[in-house]
Amino acid sequence: MAIDTRSEHQCFGGRMGFYSHHSRETGTKMRFAVYRPPQAEKEQVPALYYLAGLTCTEETFMIKAGALRLAAELGLMLVAPDTSPRGANIPGEDDDWDFGTGAGFYLDATEKPWAQNYRMYSYVTAELPSLIEDHFPAQSDNRGIFGHSMGGHGALTIALKQPDRWRSVSAFAPISNPTTVPWGEKAFSNYLGPDRTAWAQYDASILMRRQSYPGLILIDQGTSDEFLDTQLRPDALAMAAAASGQNLLLRRHEAYDHSYWFIQTFMADHLTHHARVLRAI
Amino acid sequence: MAIDTRSEHQCFGGRMGFYSHHSRETGTKMRFAVYRPPQAEKEQVPALYYLAGLTCTEETFMIKAGALRLAAELGLMLVAPDTSPRGANIPGEDDDWDFGTGAGFYLDATEKPWAQNYRMYSYVTAELPSLIEDHFPAQSDNRGIFGHSMGGHGALTIALKQPDRWRSVSAFAPISNPTTVPWGEKAFSNYLGPDRTAWAQYDASILMRRQSYPGLILIDQGTSDEFLDTQLRPDALAMAAAASGQNLLLRRHEAYDHSYWFIQTFMADHLTHHARVLRAI
Repeated sequence: MAIDTRSEHQCFGGRMGFYSHHSRETGTKMRFAVYRPPQAEKEQVPALYYLAGLTCTEETFMIKAGALRLAAELGLMLVAPDTSPRGANIPGEDDDWDFGTGAGFYLDATEKPWAQNYRMYSYVTAELPSLIEDHFPAQSDNRGIFGHSMGGHGALTIALKQPDRWRSVSAFAPISNPTTVPWGEKAFSNYLGPDRTAWAQYDASILMRRQSYPGLILIDQGTSDEFLDTQLRPDALAMAAAASGQNLLLRRHEAYDHSYWFIQTFMADHLTHHARVLRAI
Repeated sequence: MAIDTRSEHQCFGGRMGFYSHHSRETGTKMRFAVYRPPQAEKEQVPALYYLAGLTCTEETFMIKAGALRLAAELGLMLVAPDTSPRGANIPGEDDDWDFGTGAGFYLDATEKPWAQNYRMYSYVTAELPSLIEDHFPAQSDNRGIFGHSMGGHGALTIALKQPDRWRSVSAFAPISNPTTVPWGEKAFSNYLGPDRTAWAQYDASILMRRQSYPGLILIDQGTSDEFLDTQLRPDALAMAAAASGQNLLLRRHEAYDHSYWFIQTFMADHLTHHARVLRAI
């Protein structure tokens, strides 16, 4: 599997790079970003995957989250995929900001016309890690995952479904119970069809109620988040954690909204959370 | 003078805000960004102005430079203006990325058709500070200034011309000797006319040779900067500093380019440099 380098830049003693490759899962060209910390010059390092939210790209996290300085200190590789296939030429794919392009929801679609290209679950959990571990000095048995909003939903569901492959997990303002909110209902009904039993495998609150994740889950949420009650519903996750005995640290932060101004404020806590597991600091 | 709030966001315990107002200097609506550190809730704080480079806006620094975390710790207000008037409706203003819109060069134009609107020197040095000090808890006698590329040129020339108004100054990859390079020659000949004697007041190397700044000037420069030899010419500034006895710390960093990946790497050193003067740390 070949990758194309779009650009690379020295940053905090490491390398910030933007790449593309042809994905067999999505059938399209996919872009992704990798930050290699200075430690990766001499050894394989843990890789921490970040899944972004609606409308974002592989660039958003690297540019806006203020994560690179501490990743360089902690020796964490950062990996950021795009949020959907692009240019699949599916009618309507670009019509809405919360569905289709930029809104892959980190699931494998089963409904036409989406099923052939919208396979972000398989892309993020299998194809991309293989590619990363082939081309970059990333440890293959030492991955973490986190994300924001739609990407927080992605990180939580992926870690809950594959606890052996993802040793640490956290989220910023995740869509915690997507089967009950407009963003999730719109995406799941189109990508997965009308049968709601098929939706449950992509709902973090339902998954967590069935089976807890074998580690602490850190979640930060702003109380002034404009989507808090209508789309995010962290209370559902808190109740699921109570039911299954999940070790969950859900922090609510007065006055913070849904933006990267919120995310960057608590980024150091998340990177440290992951480094405790991945780097045993 | 009224200002309009476009958006405000909690960040690192302070407030990140984006604003607009009608400028009497440019005759247009101007946008600017202000980060208020947590200390500004209780007291007036020093204000550090950042001037961005070609094609940038008032958002670029706040989003890409990774400065807010440390500004919050150090108690520095950050102020970022736009890089030119926009929508002045001058024929050709949007034709080039290195002249006109997004390329005001922090000077007061004297040539038609630019002279009426392109007054970024007066805007940045007088109108904007008055506005900031009227509407935000900024100390009026305790300002610093820094910038990148075209904005590094702006910061250096402004501090050299007004050392009493700007107590600290630094720059990332500044256009150090604009009267001798293509970007500067294009801008100055159009904004200031063909008489090169009028250009000298906006050339940091010429100004510094005449009169040193009464404090340390910190400059960082990447050795892999694609504009190093053709447009930036820090050697001219080093020679001027030697001639006038200027206290200049010019650091060259192997492998770094002209991007904000470079800038963010050395941001902490610049904020600390300014805080030493403005906060007496």
